Amino acid sequence: MKLITYRLKENGNEIIGILSKDEQKIYPISQFDINYSSMNQLIENISSAELELLKSKDQKEHDQLVFRDNTINTAPIPYPKQDIICLGINYLAHAEESARFKQEAFGGERPYAVYFSKRVNEAVADCGTIPSYEGLVDSLDYEAEFALIIGKDARNVSEEDAFEYIFGYTIINDVSARNLQTAHKQWYFGKSLDGFTPMGPIIVTRDEFENPPHLNIKSYVNGELRQDSNTELLIFGIAHVISELSKGMTLKAGTIISMGTPAGVGMGFTPPRFLKKGDVIECEIEGIGKLTNTVE
Amino acid sequence: MKLITYRLKENGNEIIGILSKDEQKIYPISQFDINYSSMNQLIENISSAELELLKSKDQKEHDQLVFRDNTINTAPIPYPKQDIICLGINYLAHAEESARFKQEAFGGERPYAVYFSKRVNEAVADCGTIPSYEGLVDSLDYEAEFALIIGKDARNVSEEDAFEYIFGYTIINDVSARNLQTAHKQWYFGKSLDGFTPMGPIIVTRDEFENPPHLNIKSYVNGELRQDSNTELLIFGIAHVISELSKGMTLKAGTIISMGTPAGVGMGFTPPRFLKKGDVIECEIEGIGKLTNTVE
Repeated sequence: MKLITYRLKENGNEIIGILSKDEQKIYPISQFDINYSSMNQLIENISSAELELLKSKDQKEHDQLVFRDNTINTAPIPYPKQDIICLGINYLAHAEESARFKQEAFGGERPYAVYFSKRVNEAVADCGTIPSYEGLVDSLDYEAEFALIIGKDARNVSEEDAFEYIFGYTIINDVSARNLQTAHKQWYFGKSLDGFTPMGPIIVTRDEFENPPHLNIKSYVNGELRQDSNTELLIFGIAHVISELSKGMTLKAGTIISMGTPAGVGMGFTPPRFLKKGDVIECEIEGIGKLTNTVE
Repeated sequence: MKLITYRLKENGNEIIGILSKDEQKIYPISQFDINYSSMNQLIENISSAELELLKSKDQKEHDQLVFRDNTINTAPIPYPKQDIICLGINYLAHAEESARFKQEAFGGERPYAVYFSKRVNEAVADCGTIPSYEGLVDSLDYEAEFALIIGKDARNVSEEDAFEYIFGYTIINDVSARNLQTAHKQWYFGKSLDGFTPMGPIIVTRDEFENPPHLNIKSYVNGELRQDSNTELLIFGIAHVISELSKGMTLKAGTIISMGTPAGVGMGFTPPRFLKKGDVIECEIEGIGKLTNTVE
């Protein structure tokens, strides 16, 4: 099932719906007597029975529908309840390009996952803009990432049980200011600027994919293919990450974990190819869709 | 004015009050017709007039009062709305001890502030316990820190104006698992375990201190003085931090920024003196009070 958050052009209200098979229409979930005021509310409170009911409505035609042309895009979770947890250098080829950029030796060893966080005051919608921060940022970069959303509080979860805790998946562009990320040592500030987290266009529920999902992940800048990989190449996979983090941190329902980006980001080129005003970045993941944003 | 969040032993309700001069009594703010369901609510919504009214009630005796003996401590902000922003190695003597622990060279140069974040699902109250995570953590450490709470959304704030955006101050013990912090490269996971953020005991409003506040900051383990410094020794001061971060990130009302810890943490000793079960840690800041927690 593909879930979407949108606003009606006529009144701006935030609504949750099921995206139709042809992706042109939205079926508001309220017509099935399931009412949540936000995707966060839905993820935290939806019952198994409600979720099954919604899934049974998936791909059917329904009377109450909204044409996407009459909606304003929003990120599926416009206001994440906590900072997004991100994986760093979690594809081998990206680990190599990152080391090269920082002029560090890279022996190919990755014994531990790298976790950092990204503040998201408001996630940027599909077709929204990424600010360029002239004067503050001189090395704006893109990172297409596969992200999961936790569906129920996870504490001390085994790798075997990890997927039961996932609500669904989306795409995140982990926009990064390389100069801030590098100068401030810890990556937090360079990753957390307002407008640095495009997310969407939709959430695909977990049941749509294998466990773990092996999906092509790509990005394009102005139509040119830059990143081209598959989530099967994650160094630290989804089950490992949920299990490891939940040994110490309760991953609350609604927690978003972004699994890291493959090779092909701007800093990976010699010389680097950073983003500039007007650039259009598309992040695409098989089975989820395409997240398109423009630098302004 | 000293603000406190507490629960009544008789019903567990979370209430906000003014702490009396002798610190034995609490005057619930609702008696002054100011009603907020949480400290986050208060910080985000209180008007200048309401705040001035409360301040005018400070240090007076009032009819409606609660003896602290009849309350259960909570952290002043038990559920921070976003991860806490933390400063790393922001006192010179601590920068030296950190470098020594990591066997890194340290030239005394600190051109850029180090920012990271700390997830806080629930802050630990004064007199609450810090979990020891046997089997996961072998190097549990304490960090007494002076923390500020943003009072109104801050975006593009100059250093001159920075203090206008502060609601008040509190104490945080930035409990850290050195083995996780080091192994995972970025510090997030090793700082973000459940129970790793004791906070309190109270919030002191900004007007009680000079701008910037120069306050003694100390910590004790089992009564032995370990950290002993003053906030005037911060490498990157409050105005710098608010101004720098707000150039790119909107610091929303309720944002907590912990300003880093002085020298004297467990990893600073040779050999290191990490915490063990039963240890009592006191973090004390002049004019705020003492935050006491026990490792369990």
